[in-house]
Amino acid sequence: MNIIKAGIIGGTGYTGVELLRLLAVHPNVEVVCVASRSEAGRKVSELYPNLRGHVDITFQNFDAENYASCDVVFSATPSGIAMQHAPRLLELGAKFIDLAADFRIRSEAQWSDWYGQEHACPELLGDAVYGLPELNRSKITTARLVANPGCYPTACALGFLPLLAHRLVNPQSLIADVKSGISGAGRNASVTNLFAELGDSFKAYAASGHRHYPELSQVLSGVSSDPIKLTFVPHLLPIIRGIHATLYADLKVGVSLERVHHIFREYYEHEPFVDLLSLGMHPETRSVKSSNMCRLALHQAAGSEKLVVLSVIDNLTKGAAGQAIQNMNLMFGLDESLGLNSPALLP
Amino acid sequence: MNIIKAGIIGGTGYTGVELLRLLAVHPNVEVVCVASRSEAGRKVSELYPNLRGHVDITFQNFDAENYASCDVVFSATPSGIAMQHAPRLLELGAKFIDLAADFRIRSEAQWSDWYGQEHACPELLGDAVYGLPELNRSKITTARLVANPGCYPTACALGFLPLLAHRLVNPQSLIADVKSGISGAGRNASVTNLFAELGDSFKAYAASGHRHYPELSQVLSGVSSDPIKLTFVPHLLPIIRGIHATLYADLKVGVSLERVHHIFREYYEHEPFVDLLSLGMHPETRSVKSSNMCRLALHQAAGSEKLVVLSVIDNLTKGAAGQAIQNMNLMFGLDESLGLNSPALLP
Amino acid sequence: MNIIKAGIIGGTGYTGVELLRLLAVHPNVEVVCVASRSEAGRKVSELYPNLRGHVDITFQNFDAENYASCDVVFSATPSGIAMQHAPRLLELGAKFIDLAADFRIRSEAQWSDWYGQEHACPELLGDAVYGLPELNRSKITTARLVANPGCYPTACALGFLPLLAHRLVNPQSLIADVKSGISGAGRNASVTNLFAELGDSFKAYAASGHRHYPELSQVLSGVSSDPIKLTFVPHLLPIIRGIHATLYADLKVGVSLERVHHIFREYYEHEPFVDLLSLGMHPETRSVKSSNMCRLALHQAAGSEKLVVLSVIDNLTKGAAGQAIQNMNLMFGLDESLGLNSPALLP
Amino acid sequence: MNIIKAGIIGGTGYTGVELLRLLAVHPNVEVVCVASRSEAGRKVSELYPNLRGHVDITFQNFDAENYASCDVVFSATPSGIAMQHAPRLLELGAKFIDLAADFRIRSEAQWSDWYGQEHACPELLGDAVYGLPELNRSKITTARLVANPGCYPTACALGFLPLLAHRLVNPQSLIADVKSGISGAGRNASVTNLFAELGDSFKAYAASGHRHYPELSQVLSGVSSDPIKLTFVPHLLPIIRGIHATLYADLKVGVSLERVHHIFREYYEHEPFVDLLSLGMHPETRSVKSSNMCRLALHQAAGSEKLVVLSVIDNLTKGAAGQAIQNMNLMFGLDESLGLNSPALLP
Repeated sequence: MNIIKAGIIGGTGYTGVELLRLLAVHPNVEVVCVASRSEAGRKVSELYPNLRGHVDITFQNFDAENYASCDVVFSATPSGIAMQHAPRLLELGAKFIDLAADFRIRSEAQWSDWYGQEHACPELLGDAVYGLPELNRSKITTARLVANPGCYPTACALGFLPLLAHRLVNPQSLIADVKSGISGAGRNASVTNLFAELGDSFKAYAASGHRHYPELSQVLSGVSSDPIKLTFVPHLLPIIRGIHATLYADLKVGVSLERVHHIFREYYEHEPFVDLLSLGMHPETRSVKSSNMCRLALHQAAGSEKLVVLSVIDNLTKGAAGQAIQNMNLMFGLDESLGLNSPALLP
Repeated sequence: MNIIKAGIIGGTGYTGVELLRLLAVHPNVEVVCVASRSEAGRKVSELYPNLRGHVDITFQNFDAENYASCDVVFSATPSGIAMQHAPRLLELGAKFIDLAADFRIRSEAQWSDWYGQEHACPELLGDAVYGLPELNRSKITTARLVANPGCYPTACALGFLPLLAHRLVNPQSLIADVKSGISGAGRNASVTNLFAELGDSFKAYAASGHRHYPELSQVLSGVSSDPIKLTFVPHLLPIIRGIHATLYADLKVGVSLERVHHIFREYYEHEPFVDLLSLGMHPETRSVKSSNMCRLALHQAAGSEKLVVLSVIDNLTKGAAGQAIQNMNLMFGLDESLGLNSPALLP
Repeated sequence: MNIIKAGIIGGTGYTGVELLRLLAVHPNVEVVCVASRSEAGRKVSELYPNLRGHVDITFQNFDAENYASCDVVFSATPSGIAMQHAPRLLELGAKFIDLAADFRIRSEAQWSDWYGQEHACPELLGDAVYGLPELNRSKITTARLVANPGCYPTACALGFLPLLAHRLVNPQSLIADVKSGISGAGRNASVTNLFAELGDSFKAYAASGHRHYPELSQVLSGVSSDPIKLTFVPHLLPIIRGIHATLYADLKVGVSLERVHHIFREYYEHEPFVDLLSLGMHPETRSVKSSNMCRLALHQAAGSEKLVVLSVIDNLTKGAAGQAIQNMNLMFGLDESLGLNSPALLP
Repeated sequence: MNIIKAGIIGGTGYTGVELLRLLAVHPNVEVVCVASRSEAGRKVSELYPNLRGHVDITFQNFDAENYASCDVVFSATPSGIAMQHAPRLLELGAKFIDLAADFRIRSEAQWSDWYGQEHACPELLGDAVYGLPELNRSKITTARLVANPGCYPTACALGFLPLLAHRLVNPQSLIADVKSGISGAGRNASVTNLFAELGDSFKAYAASGHRHYPELSQVLSGVSSDPIKLTFVPHLLPIIRGIHATLYADLKVGVSLERVHHIFREYYEHEPFVDLLSLGMHPETRSVKSSNMCRLALHQAAGSEKLVVLSVIDNLTKGAAGQAIQNMNLMFGLDESLGLNSPALLP
């Protein structure tokens, strides 16, 4: 069994440490370099003491040549960085998985609008595969550049896909009321994200427009035969990990909840990381904490034709690092679940 | 200045202790008796040490005659109890404010359906005034029996009322995605509400039908010229106090966000406990913690005609005990804000 | 009744907003100016939405002459700032209350050692009164410069004072194992204090030496006839407000727990803000949240002669802004409890 | 490689689900039966949705004969139950690991004093090995009955052992100020442990005497050449998992912090689950969350001869289920770390 040599760019953020936590126990991967501008020269395990005894490597400044021996590079930086490194690293022969947004939006113009800068390598946008295995499994298998989906789009897409693919709902009636744990906001010094600012409180943010809106729109449009209309409102939960998406759509006339449930069951029957609950149940974010699982439940609200889909993931795992490893497994012909099989941490 | 003599039935729950906390500093009220079956004989301040030095009274078994001297009785029991005491207490001359649901639903049949029992005094349903001052102020002023609104309906109604009264939205398109702090679940021994079950997690519950749905439907129908359709999905937040309602409705053609904001401003201009934020802002639940304020903000989601209303209250204050005192002030001709004027606790 | 004109320097931190929250309902005080370098020109209520409708004032750059009309100035800045303003403001006739550490340590040399800078006005150190009313009430009454105690020293001193004053314990055996809510760390952009760093976790910090150690040592030495020896270890709680001090000391031979309890009761009998619990009880930090109360309980651990004193306060109230207002009340001849009489927020 | 057949008694509590979570990925163990009186007939994964797809087994009423095929039985019940089942299960040939307290105290009389009942099989007390591998590894290897240590005693003993074994401190001066996450209180319906009672608060409990005091005393006395004196005060943290022990002891004259650190390093050099931090560091409970690791740090408090040892564990893992599996590994001649090697979950 060959060992895959992996490099990480941007190892100090929460998706970086989650990659390191998961790869530390992946049987086929060795992490050979981790780049960080701010922490160069410091041991990874000094910054993240949970990795003491598991990761014995030092942050270094990024230098593409150091990654020459890598079979795969994960970029866990803020958006706008990966596009500067991807061309050279692909040239050096590595497969490249970007956990940020640089390769998620197919339209260069739309990307620039939402991210406020020019794209550094628009020529690669066509090559990038959107790394949602439940949607693009076969393409991922042969991809050399994967755009790992955003956390919100992952939770929402998995809830909406069967509805649109099977024309069960009016595609103009989509609402995603999403709630995320705070680790989604990243590990940057800011007053906004202090414990004393966010603890014991709850709020919506970016209600008029969030960067995950065009990404999710693109994914959903791709599977809908008719144009979609989507309302997307994110909120911040006083928990560290976890996303809960509450999705609303108008059922088409004559479509029963039982029929929808049946179709979901068939749609996800062979998926290792989508778990459909029985009718009547409600998923909790804690049931997926630390795991790569997405749990779904279906409801019909009293007094309306609205279908309600409840979808939970761990934003750092299925919403970021776990899904990136799932993609890596596919790209290297490994069992898709390798290294991702531990039960969630509960309580 | 006459002192109002107040009695409380069901003083051991969270709405009970919130009533006691607020009444302890109300300049015109003296609490003369507090009933509790389970804690009879115990000092109130022993159960609730925050009241040491403020409340020097002992729980006793309920006996209507003990309440003969009361000018007002607050019933803070689970639903189904107040209706057993209200007739006798009204007869004894007290005004009666029920913080549970016994008098909120006008239709006896509908009440029985949702609450699973027969109503003990349906003849009083017609007398009861739904105690939302922003809707029913003048009726409350002369009421002897007030049905204090539920916490979710309060947060939602204040967000929806101007929209329906001014026909700004399609009344068939209403969605209320509501999130509540855990104190809303009450103070009962249960595995479900343990810290280790709810901490660091988030979930929806009763997505197929919650008792606050018919209550809110009734309120909204009352102000809408056309029939409404409402979807209502509650969630449980890992915080103690606070409700955040995210409300969705389709704007009618040609209605701009600015016009809606203008109408909200006029609608609530003289309300002491509704605070409309500027466009672009998002209210946090902590900004109303411990206070009787409802904070509202308006957004229009990118890519859709959906209006998004954000509404926050403290479920124990404006959502229960604070609003009950606001109602009491109105019923006794006092300044509506008396005893309710402290700023929220932040941080 | 004359209205006291109050100025605040450093109104953007958590002790600043707590001062504003409490002074907003103080019947005898009007806040006339609030200085902040970083927020000059912004409305206070924009930064702190809980103050909307309560505080209609704008942050401005500090200029001593603007404070000329102030009867009292509260300095709620980081340590090292108040000493730059105090001389001029005292000259202008204001009384001065420093909520930071500039005037807490009597020895200029010791202050410089622990705070790493030279003192700007050592000549005022002798005038400053340490503002712990339970220790220095009469001196505070006539003071023009008050050093408001630190949060940890307040919680610890109130637990240790009767023991030392009455020689009940060996003064060489003192241990303070203290735990603080995160608001004590202030409102500064830092990775360390992010929700995702501190949430769902607990740690000690500064176990080898914390700035509150010399302050507490000085206070305790002042009431002990024999030299003291103190071990002081602070910890960070994942809550916003609240300090819990667990204090240990060796009881002298023959001193019973009952005797200690009796002496505590007498010692604090007339104190409005110290509440001694009955033997067997344990105080919770939530029982003092938002209030100026300190709750104490006494235990003797099984198998040892150790006395254990449990002491809880709200670090922002009795540990900072509330005590500052208590001091102000004393300095202006008002009822010591004025504006500080609300029960704690529970739950 | 032979698969060990494991049975669990009392699988519905938090130590039960933690055993199931860890054993689900242990390469050498198959769980063949899980008993629960209250949940008999229900699928384990229905109660604990994190185990969906991992554990496909149903709770059943306990019947010793069903455990006849078990190689090992874990008892994760409240104290007082294991002693009723142990004799028969040992007779049937299983090894027995009790995660409760029935076999921890060697003296039958002392056990009865603290647990308020007669012991059901005192004849087994002499056979039981106290399952702290760092102390009793070789005895555990050959044991058939292991008393798995309490969570507090584990965290405290690992911090105190080298000090007493090497006579570095005065054994009469021991203090353990311990703080535990709420999962330690178990999964029982109780008002005391509700989220709304414990959230955003902190308190000590059982300050006058806790059942882990005699257990810890016994362990420490066993390694001290001189009689010990111990003060033990537990507190409740508003987190789910994690214990932080802050330990105090008087250093003997001439013993430096560096020397203590050196001795700790040697003492724990080959231990897979004890990690000593460098001088100056402070361990966080999150650094061990979900893992079997104990992290230790040493400090000397300013102004005193007190040594301060900081010790953190996850109370459900190293403090319960993880340590039980570590013991099982030893009892069956497996690599001690098998199934226990995942990094802690951070953030």
